[in-house]
Amino acid sequence: MGKIITVSREFGSGGRELGKRLADELGFSYYDREIVITLAERTGLDESFVEKQLEGDSILQFPLHLAQSFSQLTTASDSSIQLKAEQTRLIREIARTKDCVIVGRAADSILEEFVPFKIFVYADEPSKLKRCRSRAADVENLTDKEILRHMKRIDRRRAEYHDIISSTVWGQKESYHLCINTTDVEIKKVIPAVAAFYRLWVGAEVN
Amino acid sequence: MGKIITVSREFGSGGRELGKRLADELGFSYYDREIVITLAERTGLDESFVEKQLEGDSILQFPLHLAQSFSQLTTASDSSIQLKAEQTRLIREIARTKDCVIVGRAADSILEEFVPFKIFVYADEPSKLKRCRSRAADVENLTDKEILRHMKRIDRRRAEYHDIISSTVWGQKESYHLCINTTDVEIKKVIPAVAAFYRLWVGAEVN
Repeated sequence: MGKIITVSREFGSGGRELGKRLADELGFSYYDREIVITLAERTGLDESFVEKQLEGDSILQFPLHLAQSFSQLTTASDSSIQLKAEQTRLIREIARTKDCVIVGRAADSILEEFVPFKIFVYADEPSKLKRCRSRAADVENLTDKEILRHMKRIDRRRAEYHDIISSTVWGQKESYHLCINTTDVEIKKVIPAVAAFYRLWVGAEVN
Repeated sequence: MGKIITVSREFGSGGRELGKRLADELGFSYYDREIVITLAERTGLDESFVEKQLEGDSILQFPLHLAQSFSQLTTASDSSIQLKAEQTRLIREIARTKDCVIVGRAADSILEEFVPFKIFVYADEPSKLKRCRSRAADVENLTDKEILRHMKRIDRRRAEYHDIISSTVWGQKESYHLCINTTDVEIKKVIPAVAAFYRLWVGAEVN
């Protein structure tokens, strides 16, 4: 079993950058889009289709009491469920063999039995908006209000997917070891501290 | 103006120890009980009376719309209010002159204008219970249930005092820069990382 760090994050908080840089700093493998690529390769499906299906919330449109009718789901919903199941298997496979940082994908819940070090990254709205504008060219024509609405929708979807498979609540500090507020902070500069935190934490656990 | 770190914490999470050790590590002054002692000296009142008045929630028994009748408050409530006002002045006085770590006392809100680095320390119930039992001899005869009830009452009081004078919410991750979960962790071992975090953070702030 490898050493595992999971990074959950609010959209626009820079959590992905933090995860990537942290993996580099620690010499761990980094997984985020890599998971989509591997799933696309394994299933022979198009990468962007896989991504869309994994991000989609079609599974949530079916209340649990309708589970018995899962066999009647539409093809799109079927793909989403199957891809999510495949993603779960892949994430466990990775965790069994590598020291890794996994961003998002409810990996903190999927890997509960591996006792990962769980980080949550968040920031205030102006800061997330600024980060979003500076990184994504495709938001150029959107108003702040539109971007914020998009952010909230994504976060809501992440929370829903997380909470449906987890005993903990997405974004609640109790679900994580360390919660980092990235408001007005240059992420790369705090990475050595996050790495130090992880290293000392592992050595500071008592039974 | 000094460099300021505030530590807010759940009862039993080891926040006080974290604050003290962090101050030592950084060479900052540490304030917690020191504030009670100074207030007792200044007012000529007994230390334990001052402590009780500062901890008391008498101010909260008077809804804000009754503020006009503050002059009719009982003596005990008066002392509590006056001591809290005196405490606020003292905390500001300290912050203006020293690099310091201040634990509790809603210092994060009182010092808002000084832009302190705000830490919140928390842990799960079994862990807080264990810490409580190992540190306080006077809980020996209490059941777990009684200790947990006491913990919750103290935390509720802290939250109420904080929220009445603050624009942020006590214990909500958004109100802090860093939230540290001390469940099953030996606090002294993670101090260098918290210190590193603070140092890097100060250097990583963007305007």
